[in-house]
Amino acid sequence: MSSHPLPQYARSQQTAIVRPTTSSRALLAPLGMQAVRLTDHFWEPRRMSNHKMGLQAQLQQSEQTGRIDNFRRAAGLIQAPFQGIYFNDSDVYKWVEACAWVLATEDDSQLAAQVDEVIALIAAAQDEDGYLNTYFTFERKAERWTNLKDMHELYCAGHLIQAAIAYHRATGKTTLLDVAVRFADNIAQVFGPQGRPGACGHPEIEMALVELARETGNERYLQQAEFFVDQHGRKPPVISGSYYMQDHLPVREQTEVVGHAVRALYLYAGMTDILTETGEQALDSALETLWHNLVEEKTYITGGVGARWEGEAFGSNYELPNDRAYTETCAAIASVMWNWRLLLLKSEARFADTIEQALYNGVISGSSLDGTLFFYQNPLADRGQHRRQPWFPTACCPPNIARLLASLPGYFYSTSEEGLWVHFYANNTATATLASGHTVMLEQETSYPWDGEVMLRVQTETTEEFTLFVRIPGWAEGARAWVNQEEVADVQSGSYLALTRVWSQSDEIRLSFPMDVKLVESHPFVAGNHDCVAIMRGPLVYCVEQADHGNIDVWNLVLPVQPVWEIERRDDLLGGVVTLQAQAYERVLTDWGGQLYRTYRGQSTHYRSARLTAIPYYAWANRETGPMQVWLPVVDHALLVD
Amino acid sequence: MSSHPLPQYARSQQTAIVRPTTSSRALLAPLGMQAVRLTDHFWEPRRMSNHKMGLQAQLQQSEQTGRIDNFRRAAGLIQAPFQGIYFNDSDVYKWVEACAWVLATEDDSQLAAQVDEVIALIAAAQDEDGYLNTYFTFERKAERWTNLKDMHELYCAGHLIQAAIAYHRATGKTTLLDVAVRFADNIAQVFGPQGRPGACGHPEIEMALVELARETGNERYLQQAEFFVDQHGRKPPVISGSYYMQDHLPVREQTEVVGHAVRALYLYAGMTDILTETGEQALDSALETLWHNLVEEKTYITGGVGARWEGEAFGSNYELPNDRAYTETCAAIASVMWNWRLLLLKSEARFADTIEQALYNGVISGSSLDGTLFFYQNPLADRGQHRRQPWFPTACCPPNIARLLASLPGYFYSTSEEGLWVHFYANNTATATLASGHTVMLEQETSYPWDGEVMLRVQTETTEEFTLFVRIPGWAEGARAWVNQEEVADVQSGSYLALTRVWSQSDEIRLSFPMDVKLVESHPFVAGNHDCVAIMRGPLVYCVEQADHGNIDVWNLVLPVQPVWEIERRDDLLGGVVTLQAQAYERVLTDWGGQLYRTYRGQSTHYRSARLTAIPYYAWANRETGPMQVWLPVVDHALLVD
Repeated sequence: MSSHPLPQYARSQQTAIVRPTTSSRALLAPLGMQAVRLTDHFWEPRRMSNHKMGLQAQLQQSEQTGRIDNFRRAAGLIQAPFQGIYFNDSDVYKWVEACAWVLATEDDSQLAAQVDEVIALIAAAQDEDGYLNTYFTFERKAERWTNLKDMHELYCAGHLIQAAIAYHRATGKTTLLDVAVRFADNIAQVFGPQGRPGACGHPEIEMALVELARETGNERYLQQAEFFVDQHGRKPPVISGSYYMQDHLPVREQTEVVGHAVRALYLYAGMTDILTETGEQALDSALETLWHNLVEEKTYITGGVGARWEGEAFGSNYELPNDRAYTETCAAIASVMWNWRLLLLKSEARFADTIEQALYNGVISGSSLDGTLFFYQNPLADRGQHRRQPWFPTACCPPNIARLLASLPGYFYSTSEEGLWVHFYANNTATATLASGHTVMLEQETSYPWDGEVMLRVQTETTEEFTLFVRIPGWAEGARAWVNQEEVADVQSGSYLALTRVWSQSDEIRLSFPMDVKLVESHPFVAGNHDCVAIMRGPLVYCVEQADHGNIDVWNLVLPVQPVWEIERRDDLLGGVVTLQAQAYERVLTDWGGQLYRTYRGQSTHYRSARLTAIPYYAWANRETGPMQVWLPVVDHALLVD
Repeated sequence: MSSHPLPQYARSQQTAIVRPTTSSRALLAPLGMQAVRLTDHFWEPRRMSNHKMGLQAQLQQSEQTGRIDNFRRAAGLIQAPFQGIYFNDSDVYKWVEACAWVLATEDDSQLAAQVDEVIALIAAAQDEDGYLNTYFTFERKAERWTNLKDMHELYCAGHLIQAAIAYHRATGKTTLLDVAVRFADNIAQVFGPQGRPGACGHPEIEMALVELARETGNERYLQQAEFFVDQHGRKPPVISGSYYMQDHLPVREQTEVVGHAVRALYLYAGMTDILTETGEQALDSALETLWHNLVEEKTYITGGVGARWEGEAFGSNYELPNDRAYTETCAAIASVMWNWRLLLLKSEARFADTIEQALYNGVISGSSLDGTLFFYQNPLADRGQHRRQPWFPTACCPPNIARLLASLPGYFYSTSEEGLWVHFYANNTATATLASGHTVMLEQETSYPWDGEVMLRVQTETTEEFTLFVRIPGWAEGARAWVNQEEVADVQSGSYLALTRVWSQSDEIRLSFPMDVKLVESHPFVAGNHDCVAIMRGPLVYCVEQADHGNIDVWNLVLPVQPVWEIERRDDLLGGVVTLQAQAYERVLTDWGGQLYRTYRGQSTHYRSARLTAIPYYAWANRETGPMQVWLPVVDHALLVD
């Protein structure tokens, strides 16, 4: 990475979500969100209700809870005590970031004015030396940087920087970027080899600083990010020495994903950004080990991560309880953020698979269908108590969902030296500038995730050969592909199908992903899933919810080994879903009385026939309350009564 | 209850563990521990190593961690800062209580001198007005009673009172009782209908005050206990309003066992003491509902309770994870304390069953075999990380085990109007004074819990008819009984067998409890135990531990539906145990590769034959580290490889 003048990014990369430098090791360059127009019925309505309803509701919450007033106070505009928790600035920054990504593509002068007003308040709240945190003003000014472990100052700074970069990319305005740079310079002056030791107890600033280096061309911020990452695991400890803060070992020696889930994944994302720019082998090796541990031992089938309530933390390997799954919405989002960076670096489909798994399940379950209510935790089984809320005292999740949904078009495509990469599927049109400088337009037509047929239409002016890399999802065993009616051989699920040719105007690629209902089992060490299966169709994990089952407690639903599924498109239900129905069994518990334990008499459970209806997991808890579960027991020979 | 002169208790009731007044509703009067001499090989060695090793080690820990110095400091004997946590006085009180119960039967002048020295320090630390808490002295004196919710002042007072009563009953000395009474009077002056509202965030003082009323004949303390209990659930809240502190509802309206487990069970124990003295129907009804919820939905098969790490709390109904079972040792002890009070009140075998289940499993698992290392948590599955420790910053568990083990002989027998009640089985001799004033001597001869044969020999001077109530444990289906070779008809497990006659010198009762190995299943809503069984023999829950299984990971052990057991007495192993061995299966995981999820192919798991060795759960983690589990999958038709 150089501190030379910034390379001129193609217009199609202007609004990239994460933008490695051209001298980095990244194999892919993301297509900015302005280059992609979603027109589908799955994501675009979510993005729209996030824009129209969610962002306004969150601004209102930020006003009502004093989050905005804290900036007015710091700016000297009002006299009032600080309100709320010391990390509340970060929620405002995430809201600004979400608005920025919306304004990148939408013409909304009201929202633009609201954001500018908030940005003006942020700028006015900044100290002369560049420091900015509304909690540590006036009477608490002397406490700045005195408790990095707990007080989230650098974490808030990181969110400010991310918001500033988004706003700069989306609008070209430097109003917030100037503020961010001044604060980053202040931070770089305080902390470092020539300054004092220290790093944040909650990682976040590391990835923000790398991106700031990319945005400004000033590699000092990259070095600052490396400095913070390298503070982990020092003896004596600089941060806390704890697993909770990933401070138990130097990051390059860490082999197990531990501690607070969002902290861990934000740290790994920052490490990946550094690796992308430096190519350091030791970082790569550690991150690969951590990634395998995450997806092979510690990820729910929904893509949710962070099993434990205590410490909002990762559990031990295979510790994935369903009813007490913590699986914070922010942690699933953090997994998307980390895997997106890995995908850009390595161009391997396993990262896109992990993103898709999280997006369609454990991320959007975090929001109600209308985008106004939110889950902090996303359990995979419930007795009917867990419901979404409009806001939380610690309100990290709502604006985190908001910024992800707002930026979603930016995750669909990338370019590389060889051509164009298609990561995800939904109706859209995209315009990409290839390495050659030529422009390619691509149109996707599909009802994904409801069916597995995808049509891609290419329009390009170039007569040079290039490759379309088309992702065949990991779940899509038996996928087929055609180019202009001619079937492509050797289509492998869990990989990018490379289609190289001189593409011409009327070329069509047809993809067909089998959308059979699939039963999935988990590793036998996952205690709660023993002899149970989850129902999947395409990228979607399904669940059974009380609202569809009358008097049958869905915790008593049991599947036969080979259910016969009836697949039904229901536009009227839950914003439009495909339901799955089958003849199954209801476990009859009458012979248990009030017992918790009894002598085992062999497999003596009795069953009744029952009709089972499964809905997508993300859509649960949008109707009347009642039990829900994802993992269902399977029974070979059911002893029927009645 | 009256404030008239105290009734003269028979000598055999002098050292009772809990002693309802003669005017109470209690159906049973416990035989004091001085009336029972244990001579068995199970409990007496534990009681002895607790006495000889444990109490000295705990005194040393209390010295090293400043717990005793805190009293010297408060007494003005040394100048030093307060050390440790604000509730640390309670550990010293529990140690004194444990010593008191030891001194009730053992002649140990060194220990007696040590206790007297500590008691002198406690007395010297007391304020002129009776207040006593070493944390709230000098610079913190002004903070007394300002944060009842968190600061455990009344909790510590409760432990002081309990220790004082034990010491008074055991030695007849009033040195500590005088201190306790002065503090209790101070408390009664501060809090009450004429004083200020308030109750402790951690119940404990309630049962202590009822017992103090019993010990002193001053019923003001009973009223004070009722006052504290009635503070729960007020609107606006007096304590916190939280479920965590059982303050969400008035106690008489509480129907579900919730919140911090030890707090909950200490509260219910205090409520039971009040009910025992007052007979209040509403309390009885609430306690019955709570008890059924506890044992029918929230108790581990080990008798451990309190499933959740976060908040050391009860989970939802059927939320009983094995690897993340919190099951604090203190909570199992608290369950014993509550059930003991219910047993005295109602004389029903279900309470004795619950006590036995906890004592033989989830309580003594809390201590290493040599009595020097302790578990705070008692999980039912582990990967080999969880090991006992000599002490904890929050050191509630070690002295709680110590006081329970020291007082154990006091739980074996009770008397009632009708005769003598035998609750538990171990070699011992007991001398009871019946209601008639006559004396009965009873001798138990048994190898319980290793075999189920029990011989009871009666010696009595009385020629009046009386009843021996002999407990037939709930697990002992098919139990048989003989009086002088003549078989008794209709022996019911889970009840007291009433044997009424004019007992004469040579009378013998023989009991035979079937000691077949039993597989037990749990309610299907317990997610982690689906299609799994636990192995039990007699009152003991068994587990499989890595140390007995070479290269086979015990998490892969699977049982056939009808194992053929080889039962072996092993005096050389783990302090002497009976091991259970059977041909079983090892799950072969090689086809899983690094996968966490895979498409379900029917029951496709492969197995190898494997020899399984089970040891008593309480004895785990006394050898080399390695995985352990209690609940094992059962497989009907195992697909064998190799």
